[in-house]
Amino acid sequence: MDDIEPISIQQAAVVGCGVIGAAWASRMLLNGVNVAVSDPSPNAEQILQEVLANAVAAYDELGLPTDRQGRYRIASSIADAVEDAQFIQESVPERPDIKAAVLAEIEAAAPVDSIIGSSTSGIKPTVMQATMTHPERLVVGHPYNPVYLLPVVEVVGGEHTPIENIRHAQAIYAGIGMRPIHVRVEIDAFVGDRLLEAVWREALWLVNDGVATTQEIDDIMTHGFGLRWAQMGLFETYRVAGGAGGFRHFIEQFGPTLEWPWTKLMDTPDFTPELVDTLVAQSDAQSGMHSVRALERTRDQNVVGFLKVLEANDWGAGRTIAQHRSR
Amino acid sequence: MDDIEPISIQQAAVVGCGVIGAAWASRMLLNGVNVAVSDPSPNAEQILQEVLANAVAAYDELGLPTDRQGRYRIASSIADAVEDAQFIQESVPERPDIKAAVLAEIEAAAPVDSIIGSSTSGIKPTVMQATMTHPERLVVGHPYNPVYLLPVVEVVGGEHTPIENIRHAQAIYAGIGMRPIHVRVEIDAFVGDRLLEAVWREALWLVNDGVATTQEIDDIMTHGFGLRWAQMGLFETYRVAGGAGGFRHFIEQFGPTLEWPWTKLMDTPDFTPELVDTLVAQSDAQSGMHSVRALERTRDQNVVGFLKVLEANDWGAGRTIAQHRSR
Repeated sequence: MDDIEPISIQQAAVVGCGVIGAAWASRMLLNGVNVAVSDPSPNAEQILQEVLANAVAAYDELGLPTDRQGRYRIASSIADAVEDAQFIQESVPERPDIKAAVLAEIEAAAPVDSIIGSSTSGIKPTVMQATMTHPERLVVGHPYNPVYLLPVVEVVGGEHTPIENIRHAQAIYAGIGMRPIHVRVEIDAFVGDRLLEAVWREALWLVNDGVATTQEIDDIMTHGFGLRWAQMGLFETYRVAGGAGGFRHFIEQFGPTLEWPWTKLMDTPDFTPELVDTLVAQSDAQSGMHSVRALERTRDQNVVGFLKVLEANDWGAGRTIAQHRSR
Repeated sequence: MDDIEPISIQQAAVVGCGVIGAAWASRMLLNGVNVAVSDPSPNAEQILQEVLANAVAAYDELGLPTDRQGRYRIASSIADAVEDAQFIQESVPERPDIKAAVLAEIEAAAPVDSIIGSSTSGIKPTVMQATMTHPERLVVGHPYNPVYLLPVVEVVGGEHTPIENIRHAQAIYAGIGMRPIHVRVEIDAFVGDRLLEAVWREALWLVNDGVATTQEIDDIMTHGFGLRWAQMGLFETYRVAGGAGGFRHFIEQFGPTLEWPWTKLMDTPDFTPELVDTLVAQSDAQSGMHSVRALERTRDQNVVGFLKVLEANDWGAGRTIAQHRSR
């Protein structure tokens, strides 16, 4: 990954401008890229403006420049948005039929040498390529929200994506300040969402079985291992736990506990009305006193603060920001 | 939890002084508690001094007082350590036979009104109580390392633990600056380790199947969802993703993806020599250029920085620190 040479593009398109698409557009705009936005909703421009305002505030606080923004325009159609785009990021709803229809519209109008990144969190690129006439242009570029702050993007090619197009996509993502991780084996849900899915299932069981509330589970994360994973991942943390004996010692010490029958992950809980009501009531009790906008501001303030700490310590996501800043 | 009134104790015992026990002792000492330490290893005092030095550096940087430390002494036996202890924290190796033998020694000498907290990450308190003569004194108090910095502790009672002893343990933990979460239903691995176990299994599959390296998995965590979970947990993050429609909207939108056959968690990977070699080699390539001591220092600097950000923003683990500071 470190040998990816970032490239700057001038013109991009964002197709689908909900929370994720708007955050993509904001990251691009703040990195000087002009963005044409296509979304059938009359609210798309408002969402974009709100998310962009959050992003500008975050970049100001991070000390990243906000005075060299690209221009956005709301396009009249997908074709209008993509016709002069060097890069297109698709963030439409997570339904294969919608993805296929939108990709067909993109393909029909986009330059032949453009790259199309899909924000899908779970659909394999080869599946999406099956109905495309120029499948070689497609990669998955799966981000984490807030996209304008969190630098990682998982880049996955399908059977019809040549490696040079994967590298080209990585270079474009790096050019807007991201850390593109090439996931070399194509699997459903890629890497990050496989991990998130595992936690989600287990957490649902804990609520379903009355072991803990959403608040208690979140507190255990935010007051415990969440503070570890913002700066060292699972494996590096466990390496430290293994002490001077390294990772082999860690496995010798803790590996056998894997055999213990702890998990309930062999099946998934049903979303019965009772479980949904419990989740909703607990989430309301936990967070209902804050508006979503207020939570987004708090989240951004916290993450910006973390990124400044990490940049000062020359570590983790802070290094990605420092490298981008120096260019 | 918020109605727990912290209490300060004068004399504690730490039984088992590896990395976890030494970090418990450090948290207690820095909160003015005298600690008697028992460990059969001749290295115990050295480990304690090293961990305590890290803890003092971290508290200095956090602006927490380090000039009102309790005194420690290395006891000649478990009986010697516990005989005048108001509270005993047990952190011996995670083997039921060792736990049982150590608990018997503790019980034989500890004051009848003392509380015994076990650091076990997976053994149910009722199982440990089966061989005890005064089982009412035992709770699980499961911490997250570095114990002197991460405030959460999961408190679990067994069948023989009266609720007032659980509350007493919570009050003692709160008195040394922690956020004690009472896990009301006794299950193997409690809450946090159930979540960690799920991630660990899935991550092992990803390495085993060649989908990603330890470095890539860690990067996706530290540059993505790890930065979210240091300040909002799984449920609050997803509530924000659901937008103004709240948690019900989130479930309607994303719940169905739970049915997708993404996970490989139905069984566990075997720790074949090949998988262990792969993990060790990847971990060495990722982190082998840093000593464990250097990684611990970096981790502490990062976490201290995060806690300062959170305290300034009056959020998450920062609120726990602010409340403790104000007392």
